[in-house]
Amino acid sequence: MFKDIIAHMKKFISLTEAEEELLISYLTVKEVKKKEQLLRAGEICQENYFIIKGLFRLYLITSKGAEQVIQFGIEGWWITEYHSYKSGMPSGFYLQAVENATVIAINRNTQEELFGKLPQLERYFRFVLEKAYAAQLMRIHYIFNLTGEEQYRMMVEKYPAFVQRIPQYMLASFLGITPEFLSMLRAKK
Amino acid sequence: MFKDIIAHMKKFISLTEAEEELLISYLTVKEVKKKEQLLRAGEICQENYFIIKGLFRLYLITSKGAEQVIQFGIEGWWITEYHSYKSGMPSGFYLQAVENATVIAINRNTQEELFGKLPQLERYFRFVLEKAYAAQLMRIHYIFNLTGEEQYRMMVEKYPAFVQRIPQYMLASFLGITPEFLSMLRAKK
Repeated sequence: MFKDIIAHMKKFISLTEAEEELLISYLTVKEVKKKEQLLRAGEICQENYFIIKGLFRLYLITSKGAEQVIQFGIEGWWITEYHSYKSGMPSGFYLQAVENATVIAINRNTQEELFGKLPQLERYFRFVLEKAYAAQLMRIHYIFNLTGEEQYRMMVEKYPAFVQRIPQYMLASFLGITPEFLSMLRAKK
Repeated sequence: MFKDIIAHMKKFISLTEAEEELLISYLTVKEVKKKEQLLRAGEICQENYFIIKGLFRLYLITSKGAEQVIQFGIEGWWITEYHSYKSGMPSGFYLQAVENATVIAINRNTQEELFGKLPQLERYFRFVLEKAYAAQLMRIHYIFNLTGEEQYRMMVEKYPAFVQRIPQYMLASFLGITPEFLSMLRAKK
């Protein structure tokens, strides 16, 4: 279980065996059932999750009562609601497992202590955040510059297996189109 | 000039005088004229900028030929096009000074060397990126959940001085509304 996260970290930083053990003592493994919420709007986001297995979505309920998917996360990605996680303010988002999943959690209350003991984690998370931030900028680019259909075609081309895993109504929400329109696009293919 | 960036860093990390001098030897000060481009689409983004004075916008030209503002940056913020900066691939964005400005640049080719010598910068940029990433998630939240008018009202309330500085057509582009509609909103106030 921990070998996946350690392998991911070792792409960017070095860890001795003793350091690996120290790290593991700060981590919690969680099995998460499909549809289970790791965070609900109104709660303070307490953890940052490395996804070992499964698919997650970060979403919100709009003022019109609709679910709006902001972000998906799959194996090998970290997912949290950073605004609440950092500030300690209640979140406006939900974080839900779309499939049965396994995650490894770091807690916001012990993270700084852990980083104090293993400062190379600063470097690791700097890399993780640079990648995540760049991805969000590209997403804003796509929202403004591509139609829902164009975004769908691009996702199918770049991430075919990923697109297959996402329930149709969630993918439609992520793309800002109706499930009916997405269904038509899929049929056209 | 360098005292601003060092003061910003010292909110998060410690630096000895010798370390400050080492840091400064890796930094470049740039005076940037209003409308000057620090990056054009098709170029590789070479630098990450800390804004000492002035206002910048990261934007793209849509397939319909319109300018779409993705992000603004003001004093005390870092701004770059991380996707290109990290990957070394040509950028799809433009980074332009909206006012006469002063920035301090870190170069992508020497950044890792600098971080190797001053590992506490990893921690500093981890904080900077967490904040920037959280802001981008909130922006995606607003794009989907608020109308252009609601986003405008919120910006006026939260950042009144900032809104005053931004040319009307750029603010309209950022909000995804027409300059005419924004002009009407401003008159209504």
